[in-house]
Amino acid sequence: MISRVLSAELAQHAGQRVTIAGWVHRRRHLKSVSFLVVRDRSGLAQAVTDLPDLPTEESVVEVTGTVEVNSRAPGGVELVRPEIEVVSAPAEAPPFDLYRPVVTASLPTVLDHAPVTLRHPRLRAPLEISAASVAGFRQALDRLGFTEIHTPKIVASATESGANVFGIDYFGRPAYLAQSPQFYKQAMVGVFERVYEVGPVFRAEPHDTVRHLAQYTSLDAELGFVRDHRDVMAVLREAVAGMLESVRARASHAVELLGAALPEVPAEIPAVHFSEAQRLTGESEPDLSPAQERWLSEWALREHGSEFLFVTGYPMAKRPFYTHPDPDRPGYTNGFDLLFRGLELVTGGQRLHRYDDYVRALAERGESLEPYEGYLQAFRYGMPPHGGFALGLERWTARLTGAANIRQTTAFPRDLHRLSP
Amino acid sequence: MISRVLSAELAQHAGQRVTIAGWVHRRRHLKSVSFLVVRDRSGLAQAVTDLPDLPTEESVVEVTGTVEVNSRAPGGVELVRPEIEVVSAPAEAPPFDLYRPVVTASLPTVLDHAPVTLRHPRLRAPLEISAASVAGFRQALDRLGFTEIHTPKIVASATESGANVFGIDYFGRPAYLAQSPQFYKQAMVGVFERVYEVGPVFRAEPHDTVRHLAQYTSLDAELGFVRDHRDVMAVLREAVAGMLESVRARASHAVELLGAALPEVPAEIPAVHFSEAQRLTGESEPDLSPAQERWLSEWALREHGSEFLFVTGYPMAKRPFYTHPDPDRPGYTNGFDLLFRGLELVTGGQRLHRYDDYVRALAERGESLEPYEGYLQAFRYGMPPHGGFALGLERWTARLTGAANIRQTTAFPRDLHRLSP
Repeated sequence: MISRVLSAELAQHAGQRVTIAGWVHRRRHLKSVSFLVVRDRSGLAQAVTDLPDLPTEESVVEVTGTVEVNSRAPGGVELVRPEIEVVSAPAEAPPFDLYRPVVTASLPTVLDHAPVTLRHPRLRAPLEISAASVAGFRQALDRLGFTEIHTPKIVASATESGANVFGIDYFGRPAYLAQSPQFYKQAMVGVFERVYEVGPVFRAEPHDTVRHLAQYTSLDAELGFVRDHRDVMAVLREAVAGMLESVRARASHAVELLGAALPEVPAEIPAVHFSEAQRLTGESEPDLSPAQERWLSEWALREHGSEFLFVTGYPMAKRPFYTHPDPDRPGYTNGFDLLFRGLELVTGGQRLHRYDDYVRALAERGESLEPYEGYLQAFRYGMPPHGGFALGLERWTARLTGAANIRQTTAFPRDLHRLSP
Repeated sequence: MISRVLSAELAQHAGQRVTIAGWVHRRRHLKSVSFLVVRDRSGLAQAVTDLPDLPTEESVVEVTGTVEVNSRAPGGVELVRPEIEVVSAPAEAPPFDLYRPVVTASLPTVLDHAPVTLRHPRLRAPLEISAASVAGFRQALDRLGFTEIHTPKIVASATESGANVFGIDYFGRPAYLAQSPQFYKQAMVGVFERVYEVGPVFRAEPHDTVRHLAQYTSLDAELGFVRDHRDVMAVLREAVAGMLESVRARASHAVELLGAALPEVPAEIPAVHFSEAQRLTGESEPDLSPAQERWLSEWALREHGSEFLFVTGYPMAKRPFYTHPDPDRPGYTNGFDLLFRGLELVTGGQRLHRYDDYVRALAERGESLEPYEGYLQAFRYGMPPHGGFALGLERWTARLTGAANIRQTTAFPRDLHRLSP
């Protein structure tokens, strides 16, 4: 490995002659002196020199210099008497200045040039928060005895929602990209009791909105031996708390850079029944509108001091056929959503677990059993009461960072129009 | 949550009355007494009863009983005076007895019934080893300052190998399933210096073999600021050691059940140059045959006491265009394979990092620049010397467990013929 010190470690080497390596983030020429700011994965470091010709921005350089304390330099130290070696020169200048505090280019321009624009500290910050979140999700569920699974992304039938699936030519046969690991994670409850998967899901979303992607990363969990959906909600609470704990531990610099305010997760997240949510908002539609979700989030913050709110008991009519009904309230389910800062972040619930109940549920919806046969297999052989949830990683990161568009939270978004880079 | 004790924890409750929950693994009726063996995620537990009617195999049950020490029972304890409650009865008997030590059904039958056959302790064991391996991979790379990324699985052009890609209808436009995150992980070296991704990759593999899948899980890593491929090999060594450490810590029961022998990873894995490998095996083809790989693995074990062997310096003609040439040996590259127990497990190497070198490499292969434009973007703006590797998770698990067919190492395999469950 190139022998180097990371910029964040420079202060530990005051007085020593060391080498740093990274990209030229910025050159600044003053009257009698010049500054070369170098960016590496840990941050920025400054070298002070009287050399007239400095390598251009985005050159890859190794800079050897003596570490000197200077309270006005980034990190409180700078390199003096530097020797600068260009390791790799750029073929052209970046499409815009990566050293400016804020990128003013339009989002399409930024996305078209993702391999270089993501080098901007503010544009890469959401990806650091995203990576830390996933690590925390896994850690929280590992602690609770979950097993990680990997399930097929190519499936035989477009069963789960029927619409918005991508078709594939599978060795001459029609097949589809999986919209979720729903059926597989349920089957795996029969094997491991508690499973999670972090992986891509695909939606042929025909609408061009700021909150939909054609591919996103879904954090899925499913667990057996629950009493009902409340046990699933308790696990989800632990997962979300673990994600935030990890963001604090692993991505504090990114959080600070974006000025993101991290929420507290109450020991018990407040929950309101769907019918009560309707009463509070004075509406009677069988689903909650975006305006109602926003209102409810504000209400939860006001009444319970919580940025998270569970809405439980969604009506049967609005939930998928595998949702477990509420045994005490006909027409309602043991399905829930988790609202976070005005938006639905997670959908989950208890599922049916008896084979006969599945057969009945499909018949009631006028659906044929046949395309579901692979799915129903698991339920023929004894399945415990179980439930789970799915959290969209990009939506989570967008809410956390205040990103206006979900495309700012993933490196190379896919949507109705965008298929590259 | 259902209040329960896991079977593996029973011994800590000797003398107490507790409840376990799980599946009826087996009923055994002797002359005056019956045994009910219950399976949960932690293992097996036995209840002793004189009840004549016991719930059938794969019934989900809660069993409350008094824990009594019995050295002949699994785990050294059993439940006596049990009360048995059936939580969920199976609709039919499993296609074969899950309690027999070995499954004798044919592999296609086993795979057709995966949601139930994976409940067999020996059939689920490879998935436990697989999950532990992935956790160890991430942990090792996290320690080395890597950042996890998630890249597009839908791409605009079938560039990397040209063949064996699945076509998609992407909103009416042709697109393809990604065969690897190669180009994306290289671009992200420009952002985070060190990145990894664990995710599905897709190969429209037209051959029906015991070692190919149409979807598999690829463990990819890429890092910048390397001197050459040897720095990549050193990181790969750490990743593999971390995987094995995690398997030992998290899946020892599965390892024991399968009688798998875990290899030691030498502090430095022995390496042999491709030309030397040819000399040793007495061949002169521009690639290594499966027979040569086996021979070299045996040689490494004999000469170096290592089940791992690096073969370095593969000829240009057999490596992709982005491979960095060996500056000292024309015609050879800084590309390597890692052989493990007779088979190529990992492919990796140093990559080109200068834009002009890419333009030249493509021209030399008679390829047009145009489909690579998105890929080459990252290299226009200064990229450090870098390299990386890709390890196929299922192939790793197969080698580790001695599975004869790679389909035994993933829950729901996809191949030329198989698209469900």
